[in-house]
Amino acid sequence: MRVLGIDCGTEYTGYGIVDLVADSRGANDRLVCVCCGAIRVSPREPMPVRLSRISQGLGKLIAAHQPDQVAIEDVFYAVNAKSALKLGQVRGVAMLAAATAGLAVSEYAPLSIKSAVVGYGRAEKHQEQQMVTRLLQLEEIPEPADAADALAIAICHLHTAATAERQGSVRRVAMR
Amino acid sequence: MRVLGIDCGTEYTGYGIVDLVADSRGANDRLVCVCCGAIRVSPREPMPVRLSRISQGLGKLIAAHQPDQVAIEDVFYAVNAKSALKLGQVRGVAMLAAATAGLAVSEYAPLSIKSAVVGYGRAEKHQEQQMVTRLLQLEEIPEPADAADALAIAICHLHTAATAERQGSVRRVAMR
Repeated sequence: MRVLGIDCGTEYTGYGIVDLVADSRGANDRLVCVCCGAIRVSPREPMPVRLSRISQGLGKLIAAHQPDQVAIEDVFYAVNAKSALKLGQVRGVAMLAAATAGLAVSEYAPLSIKSAVVGYGRAEKHQEQQMVTRLLQLEEIPEPADAADALAIAICHLHTAATAERQGSVRRVAMR
Repeated sequence: MRVLGIDCGTEYTGYGIVDLVADSRGANDRLVCVCCGAIRVSPREPMPVRLSRISQGLGKLIAAHQPDQVAIEDVFYAVNAKSALKLGQVRGVAMLAAATAGLAVSEYAPLSIKSAVVGYGRAEKHQEQQMVTRLLQLEEIPEPADAADALAIAICHLHTAATAERQGSVRRVAMR
């Protein structure tokens, strides 16, 4: 399975595409980083123009790498309603890019992402980045930080989906 | 000039298209309602699907009626960050629909919209709806309320743009 993780932001929108490669026995699945980076938009440009650039950037990424699913961070808090509204605008465009390509979108709270990646929901940001680097066997921490965050979101979704898949198999077996 | 006003909402997104028709002397410009209504999406559907429907609906409206500009309500307050984030998602999609069609987007605070339509920023909602009905010479108050709100946003933009145009003309004359 290939997942596109998106870390929405009004200036930098991070993206990271991760594959879950199953080995023949299905026990030692490997995570492989396909690509990562950030779509940067200028805060000097009008918001509709910025949203248009983010939309085009995500559309090209999806077309080029054909992910199976999309994952984004769920935000329950924000500095204030004004900044939540702005962040929501970028999230709306990211969700629309996924929906246009017929891809399902899963949302994860920051705590769930840290738990899935570091094993501890209250982990520091740099711990998460180091674990992303190690899990994907990268030579160095991905930059900018938004790219590493997006990879963490993708890893969280792959872990969660793999667990659900295993539980689903067990349940299907038990129901026979 | 033809303006599309959009009243963003997570369930009903109101729209209203208004023409400013200039008379030969340029003094008694008339406002004409081209169409109005609301794009309704089910809260039971996943947000990306809802956003996709809103995006398609606005895209069709713009293609069919070819507005020159788009106006939306600016929101400074919200019940909480969570609802601001959701509303932001719809706004992002609305702004993107305008940008995709190459249309500029203007934002107006609720106070400015009421001032432009009723002449009093703290007017009640029903006063605004009655003034919209009168200004556009409609037989009854447009329904749903989101459609009337969208028409009010379009009227506000037309008033503001017409005033700016007149001031611009005066300035241009004065500079000669």
